[in-house]
Amino acid sequence: MALFVQKFGGTSVGTVGRIREVAKRVAASVAGGDQVVVVVSAMSGETNRLEKLGFHVAPRPTPREMDVLLAAGEQVSVALVAMALIDLGRPARSWLGTQVAIRTDATHMKARIAGIDVAGLRGDLDAGVTPVVAGFQGVNEAGDITTFGRGASDTTAIALAAAIGAAECQIYTDVDGVYTADPRIVPDARRLDAICVDEMLELASLGSKVLHARSLEFVGRYGVPMRVLSSFQDVGAGTGTLIKKEESAMEDILVSGLAHQRDEAKLTVIGIPDVPGMASRILGPIGAASIEVDMIVQNTSADGLADLTFTVSRADYERAKEILTDIRGAVGARRIEGDDRIAKVSAVGLGMRSHAGVATRMFDALAAENINIQMISTSEIKISVVVEERCLDQAVRAIHAAFGLQGTSAIDDS
Amino acid sequence: MALFVQKFGGTSVGTVGRIREVAKRVAASVAGGDQVVVVVSAMSGETNRLEKLGFHVAPRPTPREMDVLLAAGEQVSVALVAMALIDLGRPARSWLGTQVAIRTDATHMKARIAGIDVAGLRGDLDAGVTPVVAGFQGVNEAGDITTFGRGASDTTAIALAAAIGAAECQIYTDVDGVYTADPRIVPDARRLDAICVDEMLELASLGSKVLHARSLEFVGRYGVPMRVLSSFQDVGAGTGTLIKKEESAMEDILVSGLAHQRDEAKLTVIGIPDVPGMASRILGPIGAASIEVDMIVQNTSADGLADLTFTVSRADYERAKEILTDIRGAVGARRIEGDDRIAKVSAVGLGMRSHAGVATRMFDALAAENINIQMISTSEIKISVVVEERCLDQAVRAIHAAFGLQGTSAIDDS
Repeated sequence: MALFVQKFGGTSVGTVGRIREVAKRVAASVAGGDQVVVVVSAMSGETNRLEKLGFHVAPRPTPREMDVLLAAGEQVSVALVAMALIDLGRPARSWLGTQVAIRTDATHMKARIAGIDVAGLRGDLDAGVTPVVAGFQGVNEAGDITTFGRGASDTTAIALAAAIGAAECQIYTDVDGVYTADPRIVPDARRLDAICVDEMLELASLGSKVLHARSLEFVGRYGVPMRVLSSFQDVGAGTGTLIKKEESAMEDILVSGLAHQRDEAKLTVIGIPDVPGMASRILGPIGAASIEVDMIVQNTSADGLADLTFTVSRADYERAKEILTDIRGAVGARRIEGDDRIAKVSAVGLGMRSHAGVATRMFDALAAENINIQMISTSEIKISVVVEERCLDQAVRAIHAAFGLQGTSAIDDS
Repeated sequence: MALFVQKFGGTSVGTVGRIREVAKRVAASVAGGDQVVVVVSAMSGETNRLEKLGFHVAPRPTPREMDVLLAAGEQVSVALVAMALIDLGRPARSWLGTQVAIRTDATHMKARIAGIDVAGLRGDLDAGVTPVVAGFQGVNEAGDITTFGRGASDTTAIALAAAIGAAECQIYTDVDGVYTADPRIVPDARRLDAICVDEMLELASLGSKVLHARSLEFVGRYGVPMRVLSSFQDVGAGTGTLIKKEESAMEDILVSGLAHQRDEAKLTVIGIPDVPGMASRILGPIGAASIEVDMIVQNTSADGLADLTFTVSRADYERAKEILTDIRGAVGARRIEGDDRIAKVSAVGLGMRSHAGVATRMFDALAAENINIQMISTSEIKISVVVEERCLDQAVRAIHAAFGLQGTSAIDDS
């Protein structure tokens, strides 16, 4: 008998039929002798509907009231899942963030969990009652409802798993695990049996949409294993992809997986004086406009002038270009260039720490396909390159093949 | 400067546009120097939608979870109304039943209010913040969400008005007051400027749908005046219909208004022995089947046998008939008769207490129209008669005219 947290996303509870399927899956775990704390998101589409209502009523809706509004979505789904479990003969009880309580700081719409009172949930488990907890929502010290940002029900689940000492936090979703690359681009991409949390964090921040990045911090901090599984297949413990703290065996694998981001744009400020403080004078106004800068590259040419290139999300391209045009004279730059049709592909792997030649193998693969690399950025366990957007799929497939990621599982989850 | 509770029903907050209209109305009251506590229902259709979801997930949904589910409806509307007020530059804050707290007993789906903590709301008012309170919902001692039954946001409003010492509880709805009769039947029906709570209670229980009957008990108990107004017209204090505790001037009016119920049915048990206990032997099994009996008439014929006639809601007719058929032999009745095409019309007025001849005037009016009276039931301030359903409209119009209810206001609200 073990204690699991099982989290079901919006698609998994998107219809009455699917809610009943979720209840059956949970009931089967309980019938098998395990204890389960269920965490659910709002029914798919519901958070969007509520958010839209809010923006229609007020162009700049009050964050405190947005949280009250959005939290209603999970309130509906916890009640329905609890009802469905009871209907199957399994005692269950819904818990809102305020009821648990999942205590947070005071930041509305992006609150951080400060602590979770698990006494009530433990009481339920001891009494044979399955608690069904609302994801995404908590309560601040003033007793106001707070929410954690879109997609953050994963965070509720893993934080709860850590707080209550669960053996595993199972994230049921519409994919059956983490893949070596997006299977829509690479048909022979392979599902990973296991991946370490540092790699998963890199993949998540580099474009993999399987998990909410913040939830992974809890895996790292508390060491609770997290498993990504499909809620639409007949799976259970031992399947899907296990995300765990680093283990030495993983270092033998050069690259665990690839991630990509399509909607990127780059801007280049050409011919600036090569003097200290130039980067901050250019990027300061960009940051002040709440535009997030991803990769930054600066190079100096022979004439003592420098070029600064950086990437932003495509949605911010025009605004960033306007800002640069405004400050061009002040920073003494010759001209501004830009390209909003670029994409980024990244390779992630713990093995890069101890193996040389990973970058070279990646560059060779792209050269063999005649794909030009526009920018490069590396960290301890990842290499990202920027390429023309139209070459993205080809680049992902070439790198995937170059590292032998296809085929049978290369990571042993033992 | 006065303190008002303003309650807006589901139709009044049914769309984004209407929510903004509600906010404008409240903001105008506040701008005029008054303090307002707003109470809102769920957006129209929302409670039905949620209830349906619940019944689809589980045929017999758990009452505790139904309350969690349904309470999400008002949670959405308080957030939206608060946002809309803030957008108009009026500080506002939403309050859920659990947050206020509106404390109730433990009966899910039909909870009764045990007390209301008004300290938080008063703090808002003192700080110039308009509190927007969720109707229909409270919290029991265990911290669970409870609800008060459909239509019970009126009850939240009047209980809140009593607890916080409001000058008036204003119920904004889709009609502009209480009428002497249903204007769809009687085109010259007149809006009452005022009506006493005992009369309104009779009208509500006799079929008038303007107000939730339970909310009226609070008017009687605490003496808070309640006003019914239209949320779709440019009205304010002094308009609509004021519902207040009895005042002597009202006793001069014989009949204040008429109510009717269309979907009635009657059943007659013919030829039962005229011995004690017969009524309870017949009506006991009907009550045990949760069928509500309205009017009951028993008469004895010359042969020492008696007939017992009673009315039920038309939806219960077939089941009641089956029950009577089953027990016919046991009670020694000759036969069972029934008619599911009857209707009830009632005249209500405090003046009946002190004036004779009211019933006669009503019967004369029906006789003049050649309408046969099938059953009669009277109380201190009302007379109800059962007639064929096809005669109902004609009967309402005839009685309305007989008591001179049309024309200018007969009740002085001074």
